[in-house]
Amino acid sequence: MIGYSFMGAAHSQAWRVAPRFFDLPLAPEMTVVAGRTRSAVEAAAERLGWAEAETDWRRLLERPDVDLVDICTPGSTHAEIALAALAAGKHVLCEKPLANSVAEAEEMAAAAAVAARDGVLAMVGFTYRRVPALSFARQLVAEGRLGTIRHVRAQYLQDWIADEEAPLSWRLDREKAGSGALGDIGAHVVDLAQFITGERITGVSGLLETFVHERPVATEHAGLHGSAGSERGPVTVDDAAVFLARFSGGGIGTFEATRFAWGRKNAIRLEINGSAGSLAFDFEDMNVLHWFDAADEARLAGFRRIVVTEPEHPYAAAWWPPGHGLGYEHGFTHQAVDLVRSLAAGEQPRPSFADGLVVQRVLDAVERSAAADSIWTTVPTDTIQED
Amino acid sequence: MIGYSFMGAAHSQAWRVAPRFFDLPLAPEMTVVAGRTRSAVEAAAERLGWAEAETDWRRLLERPDVDLVDICTPGSTHAEIALAALAAGKHVLCEKPLANSVAEAEEMAAAAAVAARDGVLAMVGFTYRRVPALSFARQLVAEGRLGTIRHVRAQYLQDWIADEEAPLSWRLDREKAGSGALGDIGAHVVDLAQFITGERITGVSGLLETFVHERPVATEHAGLHGSAGSERGPVTVDDAAVFLARFSGGGIGTFEATRFAWGRKNAIRLEINGSAGSLAFDFEDMNVLHWFDAADEARLAGFRRIVVTEPEHPYAAAWWPPGHGLGYEHGFTHQAVDLVRSLAAGEQPRPSFADGLVVQRVLDAVERSAAADSIWTTVPTDTIQED
Amino acid sequence: MIGYSFMGAAHSQAWRVAPRFFDLPLAPEMTVVAGRTRSAVEAAAERLGWAEAETDWRRLLERPDVDLVDICTPGSTHAEIALAALAAGKHVLCEKPLANSVAEAEEMAAAAAVAARDGVLAMVGFTYRRVPALSFARQLVAEGRLGTIRHVRAQYLQDWIADEEAPLSWRLDREKAGSGALGDIGAHVVDLAQFITGERITGVSGLLETFVHERPVATEHAGLHGSAGSERGPVTVDDAAVFLARFSGGGIGTFEATRFAWGRKNAIRLEINGSAGSLAFDFEDMNVLHWFDAADEARLAGFRRIVVTEPEHPYAAAWWPPGHGLGYEHGFTHQAVDLVRSLAAGEQPRPSFADGLVVQRVLDAVERSAAADSIWTTVPTDTIQED
Amino acid sequence: MIGYSFMGAAHSQAWRVAPRFFDLPLAPEMTVVAGRTRSAVEAAAERLGWAEAETDWRRLLERPDVDLVDICTPGSTHAEIALAALAAGKHVLCEKPLANSVAEAEEMAAAAAVAARDGVLAMVGFTYRRVPALSFARQLVAEGRLGTIRHVRAQYLQDWIADEEAPLSWRLDREKAGSGALGDIGAHVVDLAQFITGERITGVSGLLETFVHERPVATEHAGLHGSAGSERGPVTVDDAAVFLARFSGGGIGTFEATRFAWGRKNAIRLEINGSAGSLAFDFEDMNVLHWFDAADEARLAGFRRIVVTEPEHPYAAAWWPPGHGLGYEHGFTHQAVDLVRSLAAGEQPRPSFADGLVVQRVLDAVERSAAADSIWTTVPTDTIQED
Repeated sequence: MIGYSFMGAAHSQAWRVAPRFFDLPLAPEMTVVAGRTRSAVEAAAERLGWAEAETDWRRLLERPDVDLVDICTPGSTHAEIALAALAAGKHVLCEKPLANSVAEAEEMAAAAAVAARDGVLAMVGFTYRRVPALSFARQLVAEGRLGTIRHVRAQYLQDWIADEEAPLSWRLDREKAGSGALGDIGAHVVDLAQFITGERITGVSGLLETFVHERPVATEHAGLHGSAGSERGPVTVDDAAVFLARFSGGGIGTFEATRFAWGRKNAIRLEINGSAGSLAFDFEDMNVLHWFDAADEARLAGFRRIVVTEPEHPYAAAWWPPGHGLGYEHGFTHQAVDLVRSLAAGEQPRPSFADGLVVQRVLDAVERSAAADSIWTTVPTDTIQED
Repeated sequence: MIGYSFMGAAHSQAWRVAPRFFDLPLAPEMTVVAGRTRSAVEAAAERLGWAEAETDWRRLLERPDVDLVDICTPGSTHAEIALAALAAGKHVLCEKPLANSVAEAEEMAAAAAVAARDGVLAMVGFTYRRVPALSFARQLVAEGRLGTIRHVRAQYLQDWIADEEAPLSWRLDREKAGSGALGDIGAHVVDLAQFITGERITGVSGLLETFVHERPVATEHAGLHGSAGSERGPVTVDDAAVFLARFSGGGIGTFEATRFAWGRKNAIRLEINGSAGSLAFDFEDMNVLHWFDAADEARLAGFRRIVVTEPEHPYAAAWWPPGHGLGYEHGFTHQAVDLVRSLAAGEQPRPSFADGLVVQRVLDAVERSAAADSIWTTVPTDTIQED
Repeated sequence: MIGYSFMGAAHSQAWRVAPRFFDLPLAPEMTVVAGRTRSAVEAAAERLGWAEAETDWRRLLERPDVDLVDICTPGSTHAEIALAALAAGKHVLCEKPLANSVAEAEEMAAAAAVAARDGVLAMVGFTYRRVPALSFARQLVAEGRLGTIRHVRAQYLQDWIADEEAPLSWRLDREKAGSGALGDIGAHVVDLAQFITGERITGVSGLLETFVHERPVATEHAGLHGSAGSERGPVTVDDAAVFLARFSGGGIGTFEATRFAWGRKNAIRLEINGSAGSLAFDFEDMNVLHWFDAADEARLAGFRRIVVTEPEHPYAAAWWPPGHGLGYEHGFTHQAVDLVRSLAAGEQPRPSFADGLVVQRVLDAVERSAAADSIWTTVPTDTIQED
Repeated sequence: MIGYSFMGAAHSQAWRVAPRFFDLPLAPEMTVVAGRTRSAVEAAAERLGWAEAETDWRRLLERPDVDLVDICTPGSTHAEIALAALAAGKHVLCEKPLANSVAEAEEMAAAAAVAARDGVLAMVGFTYRRVPALSFARQLVAEGRLGTIRHVRAQYLQDWIADEEAPLSWRLDREKAGSGALGDIGAHVVDLAQFITGERITGVSGLLETFVHERPVATEHAGLHGSAGSERGPVTVDDAAVFLARFSGGGIGTFEATRFAWGRKNAIRLEINGSAGSLAFDFEDMNVLHWFDAADEARLAGFRRIVVTEPEHPYAAAWWPPGHGLGYEHGFTHQAVDLVRSLAAGEQPRPSFADGLVVQRVLDAVERSAAADSIWTTVPTDTIQED
């Protein structure tokens, strides 16, 4: 594993826990974690449970005891690492976004397609697909329970920089983060909308906005919520992104990603209306999926609040009895499970790098539209396809 | 009153009930209702409680015992009637939308401005402003409790034509209705967003869609939900409208109006995020307003579910004790109350025709943007202003 | 109508509105209202829309133009007025509770049974039965959709005297009110539980509590929320009542009535679990009924949030389109409609005085149990039955 | 650890995960798990991550590398194992209920008090205390934010035997389980109510009911949801338990525990009303606590939906960013953390065996009341107290 911050902790928990609840065809071993600073990476190895630590990620590619490279670093480094890892014959799990540019993403997807021919497989980490309620949503759509999709309304709302005095971080720096709310959290709802509907976004009209252009520079001693000094620096990414979309099946969508929605902590909200019914989800109540079945008798019809913890629901049988809900991190465990099973079966894990490229192209189209007076912008679809 | 269908029934109830719960400076009298067919209008007069019936609306303008003309007909007739009524020196309450085109709306707003100089006053019927929770929302924003507005997300979701076999009606005919979901229900959320924020929408990027292009023609014997014959006719309006918007205060918005959202019956949803807090509302739970105060201590902060039935809340003291909620029609009663009070005081009632024109211009900009690849389209602001 | 306070206003609105939305076989006329103080009753007649005012309720019984006497006075006066009215051959609508004691209620039920033989009919005003969601709940149970009833949990929660400095009122005086939360609001959930399940409460174990024993005496100039003087008087009723119950069908129940539940304004909550499904309702969201169907496939099962505004739902077709919710007062209108229809058909309206007696006996059993260390106390069932 | 079923899996996950997210003064080692059948316990050790397996739990007490014995067996075995472990100088974590009888619980509490003098500490596993929202609820009460407690309404609702054909299990056998819903799930809400309020239940009036007296015997090949043969056996415990209660601070409560509430999967619901505010919680939305502050201005007051994932909330800082919710099993991890910290500090962990005895005495009083016509039954309070 490369990187050991927020995502590194989540991935470590997944590798640790997955084999305890699921029957896996391969036994994951937490061999080595890489980071730049020796003392920090060694402490992380100890805390997160990795056997060894390295300060140069390239060392991992040389080790015969490493079969899979798990990339948990910022987006600007993904392409270099992933390409090298695939070239070295290592399977790759790469955190989202796949890359900070479409060009990089294309290169990565192409490399993954080549590697796959040799059985070297790559996956991108859109873990929310593995929230049981959202996996189940996809099942319902795939079974035809929504009919033709007409509307998608997707929001990812947070509030952690709604305070104008919240300090700068690498996520507000275009160099490192690529974009702001759009790529960081908008990417998730783009992927989810396509995953659940089984359709592609074909075109968009977008609008980006930065509400707060300068923020305090976080001093070394200031923590995440620490007090900042008087120095201020520029915010170089979008604070919020909104866009309209058309789907390949004829439906339309509205998308919104923002970190300025006071009171919404991690509200991934999806509502989908089809010709035969509707679905609604909010990550703030993550164990529940709401489903309206238009085939129900009118006087008996209503959104069903389905608690997605029955043994029949995705992933649920491995955990606790009904009603004993799961949390955020379980998505990562499910991702690890699915990845290991795909690797053992020699099958392409999903979402693939090509899936990640598809998301990247949507985000890029939003940015281009926003830069051109919101003009309708087609999302290129001549992508590398593995399925 | 002219027209006696859905809106006619709601307005009649308002005139009947308002003086029973509110102290009014003038006593409304339900003098005469007009409609085209004698038998029908006489039955309506009897049922709705009007003293007399007329078959020519122009007769009302000649009667000295008519002080106020209440227009409850389809949008295509609003301009002609309202202009004539104002010219005849009658106060006017005109159902929304003000008109089916900007040109008509401009003429009406101009006429209203002229009439107002002579104390003849005109109001447009965006009654949802008078839902107590939404009046209260405006108060909170006006008090500065949201700070600078950053996000508006507004949806008006219905499902009454989600069934592809639902029959044609005048609301699906561009000639009569002007537009589809956009003007019929989108108009409400446009007005509400501007009313609550106290800001103007300055530009939009829009997308319109018609999902079902042909529908059964409703036969004479088929009721609202009746079976239809084999004849089919064209739908000439939008089934759904979505658009992005910028507000005069620097915020951005997403808007959606559709009648294809299975399971959402009359879901007017508004969520507004400002620099100091957030508001959320859903008409399906109309007596409740959710408010998040960013000034609350972090561990104690949360959306407050305010049941808007305390004596301190708008309109509430006139009705029942706390927790004894109001219904849809109460907005019409409040509208009647506010109108009568404005007339007695000789003050311009709001929303004025100029306010109605502002909405019309937004809708028109959405249509023009949608017709031009969603290109950003500025909403003209050189309007007649009475305040 | 006798009495013109909170209930008088609600009943007046019902008589005024019922014929405007429903086809009635008889046309209600609001002939005369009675009260003790001339000036006050005349003002009420004017405000509420009654043609005449009387200061002696006995005068109403002598008038040939009065067919129905609507009793909206405190419970301590119900028996005297209702008995006299029935004796005078007038139909009676009597507000709940039927009486302040079982003895009075028995006398009233007996008199009503006698009068009914002559076509003089009596009804008690448990209006919440006519909230569409609760009428619909009864339908679902009657259709067998819940199977055998196993659990009833019923709560009526308010907070208007949670503040220890809230002043005394007649509702806190045992002489006038009979009991406190038990009879005032507990009576409603007792009636609803029996109405919806179609069963009787056969025994109870109760506990009553008075949290605040002395309160400020409301001075003449202090309003409902006005400041009170330094004088204090005793609270002679229960502040809260809780009890366990058994139902005639084998189920068990928990009941609670309190005015000390901060933040709950008028929360009538019912949850019923049967062998085939469950129902849940909260008056704070009065247009919604939640239904769980155990016959649904496990992975698709969930409480359905049914918005009870479809034309197929009780009373709904007379009002507005789906999703345009009703309010508190509509229950009174439905009560007026059902009563008029029963009178025109010469059929016993429900809830009858015998139904009211049944409730009274349950309340009495709760009081007796509470006075005897909560010992299990059987509810007498040798009642006068008209069905 | 002794036992390796549902609770064994949850405890193992806790020991594995706790040191990865929390700084612990001691490093837990998962040394050895005990069970009766060699093949099964060895498989469990492998799956759950224990270094060794034993088939006789007494062997653990002899091992010097075992410092803490974690008892995850059915209640009928708790007393014997815990007493032996304490006598052997091992710290003990014992799953709830502490025992199947008050007599056993008293013996265990007495033994724990003696052992504590030698620094050998015992804890009982009411893990729901460590759900962050409930720990936070206790904080709010302790800070005085609810004032004097007036009402507790507590429900634990499940539906896993609502189906009359669900097979027998040890949980329906009085020999092994001690009681039914009362001890299995009612125990949790009794503990929580006392924990959050910081008060004792002083007396109760109870009612127990068994709805289904015979059930299919689960055959060897039938799984949890498998089909059963034609043999039937008796249910010897309560299916549902309800009771009224008084608290030491003067408040009253209603309690309910049932597994017959169709659609409620694991609904632990607590609502507490005090003189200064209210709290509400439902485990089906476990990351949220609702708080009403009576000090708020009336028009701005409402239940606050607090998402208990801020760094200021109990346990939350160790996990993920705000809004990234936790799941059921996290309570066990928090329990492990608190226990390890108490052991390291030589302080009594809570809930202690004396706390477990307090719960047992309440359950016993409920059973005695239910057996005596629900007569009010005092809960003995002459307990061994360590604080």
